[in-house]
Amino acid sequence: MEILPNRLISWRRDFHRYPEQGFLEMRTASIVAAELDRLGFELALGQDVMKKEACMGKPDDALTESHYDWAKENGANEAYLAYFKNGYTGIVATLDTKRPGPTLAFRFDMDALPITESDALNHAPKQLGFRSIVEGSMHACGHDAHTAIGLGLANMLAKEKDQLNGVMKIIFQPAEEGTRGAKAMVEAGVVDDVDYFIASHIGTGVPHRHFVAATNGFMATTKLNITFSGIASHAGGSPEEGKNALLAAANATLNMHAICRHSAGDSRVHVGELHAGSGRNVVASHAELIAETRGETSEVNQYMKEQVENIVAGAASMYGVDYHIKVVGEALNSICSDDLAETLANIAKEHPFMEKVVVHDDLSAGSEDATYFINEVQRQGGQATYCIFGTELAAGHHHECFDIDEASLLPAVEILHAFAKKCK
Amino acid sequence: MEILPNRLISWRRDFHRYPEQGFLEMRTASIVAAELDRLGFELALGQDVMKKEACMGKPDDALTESHYDWAKENGANEAYLAYFKNGYTGIVATLDTKRPGPTLAFRFDMDALPITESDALNHAPKQLGFRSIVEGSMHACGHDAHTAIGLGLANMLAKEKDQLNGVMKIIFQPAEEGTRGAKAMVEAGVVDDVDYFIASHIGTGVPHRHFVAATNGFMATTKLNITFSGIASHAGGSPEEGKNALLAAANATLNMHAICRHSAGDSRVHVGELHAGSGRNVVASHAELIAETRGETSEVNQYMKEQVENIVAGAASMYGVDYHIKVVGEALNSICSDDLAETLANIAKEHPFMEKVVVHDDLSAGSEDATYFINEVQRQGGQATYCIFGTELAAGHHHECFDIDEASLLPAVEILHAFAKKCK
Amino acid sequence: MEILPNRLISWRRDFHRYPEQGFLEMRTASIVAAELDRLGFELALGQDVMKKEACMGKPDDALTESHYDWAKENGANEAYLAYFKNGYTGIVATLDTKRPGPTLAFRFDMDALPITESDALNHAPKQLGFRSIVEGSMHACGHDAHTAIGLGLANMLAKEKDQLNGVMKIIFQPAEEGTRGAKAMVEAGVVDDVDYFIASHIGTGVPHRHFVAATNGFMATTKLNITFSGIASHAGGSPEEGKNALLAAANATLNMHAICRHSAGDSRVHVGELHAGSGRNVVASHAELIAETRGETSEVNQYMKEQVENIVAGAASMYGVDYHIKVVGEALNSICSDDLAETLANIAKEHPFMEKVVVHDDLSAGSEDATYFINEVQRQGGQATYCIFGTELAAGHHHECFDIDEASLLPAVEILHAFAKKCK
Amino acid sequence: MEILPNRLISWRRDFHRYPEQGFLEMRTASIVAAELDRLGFELALGQDVMKKEACMGKPDDALTESHYDWAKENGANEAYLAYFKNGYTGIVATLDTKRPGPTLAFRFDMDALPITESDALNHAPKQLGFRSIVEGSMHACGHDAHTAIGLGLANMLAKEKDQLNGVMKIIFQPAEEGTRGAKAMVEAGVVDDVDYFIASHIGTGVPHRHFVAATNGFMATTKLNITFSGIASHAGGSPEEGKNALLAAANATLNMHAICRHSAGDSRVHVGELHAGSGRNVVASHAELIAETRGETSEVNQYMKEQVENIVAGAASMYGVDYHIKVVGEALNSICSDDLAETLANIAKEHPFMEKVVVHDDLSAGSEDATYFINEVQRQGGQATYCIFGTELAAGHHHECFDIDEASLLPAVEILHAFAKKCK
Repeated sequence: MEILPNRLISWRRDFHRYPEQGFLEMRTASIVAAELDRLGFELALGQDVMKKEACMGKPDDALTESHYDWAKENGANEAYLAYFKNGYTGIVATLDTKRPGPTLAFRFDMDALPITESDALNHAPKQLGFRSIVEGSMHACGHDAHTAIGLGLANMLAKEKDQLNGVMKIIFQPAEEGTRGAKAMVEAGVVDDVDYFIASHIGTGVPHRHFVAATNGFMATTKLNITFSGIASHAGGSPEEGKNALLAAANATLNMHAICRHSAGDSRVHVGELHAGSGRNVVASHAELIAETRGETSEVNQYMKEQVENIVAGAASMYGVDYHIKVVGEALNSICSDDLAETLANIAKEHPFMEKVVVHDDLSAGSEDATYFINEVQRQGGQATYCIFGTELAAGHHHECFDIDEASLLPAVEILHAFAKKCK
Repeated sequence: MEILPNRLISWRRDFHRYPEQGFLEMRTASIVAAELDRLGFELALGQDVMKKEACMGKPDDALTESHYDWAKENGANEAYLAYFKNGYTGIVATLDTKRPGPTLAFRFDMDALPITESDALNHAPKQLGFRSIVEGSMHACGHDAHTAIGLGLANMLAKEKDQLNGVMKIIFQPAEEGTRGAKAMVEAGVVDDVDYFIASHIGTGVPHRHFVAATNGFMATTKLNITFSGIASHAGGSPEEGKNALLAAANATLNMHAICRHSAGDSRVHVGELHAGSGRNVVASHAELIAETRGETSEVNQYMKEQVENIVAGAASMYGVDYHIKVVGEALNSICSDDLAETLANIAKEHPFMEKVVVHDDLSAGSEDATYFINEVQRQGGQATYCIFGTELAAGHHHECFDIDEASLLPAVEILHAFAKKCK
Repeated sequence: MEILPNRLISWRRDFHRYPEQGFLEMRTASIVAAELDRLGFELALGQDVMKKEACMGKPDDALTESHYDWAKENGANEAYLAYFKNGYTGIVATLDTKRPGPTLAFRFDMDALPITESDALNHAPKQLGFRSIVEGSMHACGHDAHTAIGLGLANMLAKEKDQLNGVMKIIFQPAEEGTRGAKAMVEAGVVDDVDYFIASHIGTGVPHRHFVAATNGFMATTKLNITFSGIASHAGGSPEEGKNALLAAANATLNMHAICRHSAGDSRVHVGELHAGSGRNVVASHAELIAETRGETSEVNQYMKEQVENIVAGAASMYGVDYHIKVVGEALNSICSDDLAETLANIAKEHPFMEKVVVHDDLSAGSEDATYFINEVQRQGGQATYCIFGTELAAGHHHECFDIDEASLLPAVEILHAFAKKCK
Repeated sequence: MEILPNRLISWRRDFHRYPEQGFLEMRTASIVAAELDRLGFELALGQDVMKKEACMGKPDDALTESHYDWAKENGANEAYLAYFKNGYTGIVATLDTKRPGPTLAFRFDMDALPITESDALNHAPKQLGFRSIVEGSMHACGHDAHTAIGLGLANMLAKEKDQLNGVMKIIFQPAEEGTRGAKAMVEAGVVDDVDYFIASHIGTGVPHRHFVAATNGFMATTKLNITFSGIASHAGGSPEEGKNALLAAANATLNMHAICRHSAGDSRVHVGELHAGSGRNVVASHAELIAETRGETSEVNQYMKEQVENIVAGAASMYGVDYHIKVVGEALNSICSDDLAETLANIAKEHPFMEKVVVHDDLSAGSEDATYFINEVQRQGGQATYCIFGTELAAGHHHECFDIDEASLLPAVEILHAFAKKCK
């Protein structure tokens, strides 16, 4: 067996080359499951760890099926692939030491983004031959690295199982982008028994060799697809017979952006896309808005969401059109547990790779559905945190030239492993 | 008794000097009623000729009562004033010849406009001492002349009663401005027995010594006062606790103006006034729109009105505020009866004062509630028309310098009288 | 040579099967040019009869080039195809009798619509094997019939040349749909010498065996593609750095629809399509509106267009974005020449096929760029009309099941030919 | 001479009974000036301490003149009243100890609010006979108390002048409501020589017997009066001739509320009032918005203000109307000086009246133009703070039943005096 640092890099590059978007991580999950099974973890897969009704923004069946064929043709582990055929690609791997002790959970996300990766020669993945083979899909947020770290951690935990206490759970989550996948795993109960929960991210602006043990700045968010359905008519000959979905959408958009600020915290509302109409002289019978709300707290986000609902209903009623609001993603805000953050920070300080360790340092205005795990663990009396492994970025997250410094992978594994060893 | 031309002028100047707005024509009506009584007409007054529920935009009790005091102090005929105390100022005067023949009705309107009359020295009413004594009220549309013509006609009909057949009705209507008073008289049944109906107007751009026997161009219209009621809150400290009536109103306004054209005919929608809010940093809890719709046909106007209702309801719902729509005026479109127009035109051609007589010549985009009378008479099988007596105007209708050439008064009386004589 | 009625039908079905949209009528034009050449007409083609700068909404080079390949593979007459390679597909065919007499011009349009034809078995073109072979393109407005009538007329004129006087011109115009092609031909001067001009249309609601010699109801129109260009930014992380093209577009749309009515005549304004944005959480840097204005007169349309320009500029300025307005189609209103209409009506009355002939009967709220020809011919002292050959329609114009009764083709040719014979 | 506690109460009640709004504090200032002069302070008044150009939202001359008459008739000190006739009512009173030491400045505001005071019997000012005698004006924010405290402080400083060092300045500022008056005093240089600056407020939710030495939560703000000027026309007869100021205003309002959030801090934008139009059927030629922006920092507020400017200009351009934006109030955010706050807190802790002393406790979302003084003093190297004297409130600030517990007046004076004594 190759030594771990090399395997971390080869995993990360393999996942990078074959990026899979949310609820389509079939190839990735098949490889992850195979490795975890090999290491002796007990596996729970797919709908056993994901509540169907709580999955948001899942692709339709046609896309799911065609992606299965793609995965098969592109190196998936066929023995495990079948478990993920329907797009429920979550994995919970459990290692029970049979010794008394707390239950730990580590969560890693696996999905890629709808971005076409840079083809520039000075873009390292291109140079080194692991650029995405899929136009329109790219690991531009580091989830390839997260999945590799998860596998690395599994290896170290399995190898040193005798030095551990309690129960170790590693959670591989689909569809973090768009905050679509976590809620389904939480509602399936996968952290119901967890005492300590750690989610982690690489990069996010934290410098190389820096570590942040806890970040609280995530905004609660709701992702909304809103459609208006009216009646077409000839805009010159019989305009009064139409029911104008485009005007309803334009009007809803303007008024959504005019939702007033909330005194309890920062908020956002945004219509990112508007598509309406089918011809210059036809009253538009269809319009679609791609929108989102955010709130510094879940309450503020809830307020924003309710205002959006009122506005959409009112705009539809104004123009006599029907409407439909579909929630295709959602996340909460969260507050990390101080004790756990402190413990983790102290462990990181002892790692020779780390030059600077910060207990708290908030990100601003981003969103994360790991917040579902964090809130649930804390609600049940456990502790939870969201930590950041700094790294040098070639370009910012979600940029077509995004790339990390792979030297940060091994220390990440080692710090999480050190935490596991310390827990009794 | 003075000769008629002089009386016409002195009536017109008296009414001009003491203008009374809609549903407040108490002084005017008391003088009219006294004269008609003197001439031997049978009188029906106030709520006997006006259906209370169909009166629109009637002033409140306080204003009505204080105006009664004003009328008393300013020359009303006290013997008749009491009949009009409650603001139902309509009069129907009937002269029954007891000879077989058709029932004729002539309608005149009595109300003034909320305009302050010019104080310029070259404005004839100022120069000649009959400028309005009331700041903010003025006969700037000629209804003073209409009332005088009505009284002149009554005199001629009474004097030559023996040469007439059938029944003569003279209708003095309140509140034509804002199209508020006619509907109530029609619903009280005052034209239920009418075979020939003539409404008339002076001026309207028709030149001096010209006569138009029929005009069809009136647009149906609805006058709407719309209020939004929300909840105030501090716009800095707790904006989310407010329900913003101002935003609902602004939004309703914009979308009302965006109501699409109707292929069946010309339309209008207009918000003439918007008043909202009570302080810079207070979420507005109240907003009011002063609005109107118009349509080339009553159906088109109805369409516009329904869209306004949808939009107002939708805008209120968007912002979580209550709303109220009050119809404060309404009129129909109308098509004059060809035969009657032809007959009237032929009579006018024989009058030496008239240099040009036109059967049909449409006004555009104005509105008139005489259309209620016209539609009702025709519905019952009678004939009806709306004719124009041309005159030289000092300034356009509704202008503070509006004035007519009084030489046009007597010919107007004589033409209507000639028509009455001809009917058998 | 087959007899004419059969040829009319086979031409019409051939063009129907191979529909070509505006400025792409290469196959059609190549067949038309070949036939006209064969008949001895003198031909002027492409940019000789079309002013490049006045072409509106012409497809880009890539589409034009790929369509050329399509035409070549689908039965174009290769000898003539090359003349139309660049998409300037206009043809003016002249037959000079060398005898004194007026110059006549007949105009026919050739382009198809962006509609996918019905595949229903009871749709005649499907049943009879001439359904469009191109998904997304269809002759759903009868221009296939128009082109066939034009060729039929050319045949009859050529055959009976000895009985004619003056000069005969047949104009085959591209891109009438979207009112894009006529202006370029008029500005190239193709009707500068014309004394009598006749444009014609089949169907439009006029019943089978009916003929309308003149229709005036076309609204002037302008077709506008409007783009807004802003700056993208992360809607959560740095919303204030974005310049929101979507909001500018939504706002422009709402306010365009709120442009007030014009008292001089009917008007329209319509945004048929709005497309904006590239991601849920990205401030939209691009938005596009597909819009049009109309006016009962060219002046009213001009008023509407100017308001649109003001509104678009204002909306862009509000949101700090750039904008571009491209006119991709334009047409005028027109008034047919009474004498010419009368003459044409009398000729049609003598045709045994016609059961009813009407001199004037206005269409409402449609638009036509033949109005450029009509206005220009009249401006130079000639006479012009737009006539309608009634026919039974399987479904309305622009409907996927549109179809005509081919029995109406020959009478159309014969009436136009009769007119030509009568002109001296 | 009466003892101080009683004088504090009688001053406060006198000012309460005769409230004067911003730039009209003539009666108040005349009494203040007289007392300060009596105590031996050197006085600088009116335009000597206020830069004319920097005064915002000053009433017009007519109102200023008529208020002068009111002040004369209602107990102003006539000897000093003349100095304030033009509405520049600021006072800077200086006591120079001639001993070396720092320059201290204490600022008090004097103006009332446009609120009608409660007439309820259980409202103490009503019961005790010092309810406002002016309908529509009320000291509902405690500035009557502030002025009284300022006079009390002046008395104590004058009395114990021998125990003081350096220079004492007491600043009486007009027009704090609407944040209109401070900038003019700062720009006149009144704190150019100041080493320690203290502004204070009573109440604001801080409980009775509590003291807050420093509050930072003020939002920067700009108060804007925005007018649109269009062209009137008849909405039925010639709508296209109008330039609609009401639509421009409605549109500006909606889009102002849609200004996007700023990632650098909390923001607000609010249109509190909209008044437009003069008649139902007249295109509105005039519209006015009463608006404000706020920002957690002055930069954020500046961003909001610039967006408002863009939106107003764009909306005006859309509708072809003119506009004018007038800044009628402005304030900054501020950060109190830590050392000064600490010192002040320690002094307050020693005062027996105080049960709780807090160094920092931020208000949220309010605004204050004392921030101009604070920023300027700090810019020049001095220290500044804004402290709060808690008190029991009968109802919240700006409420018609607002009232304070007068027992908090004397401790306020004593704490400020103690600070003065301590400074060397």
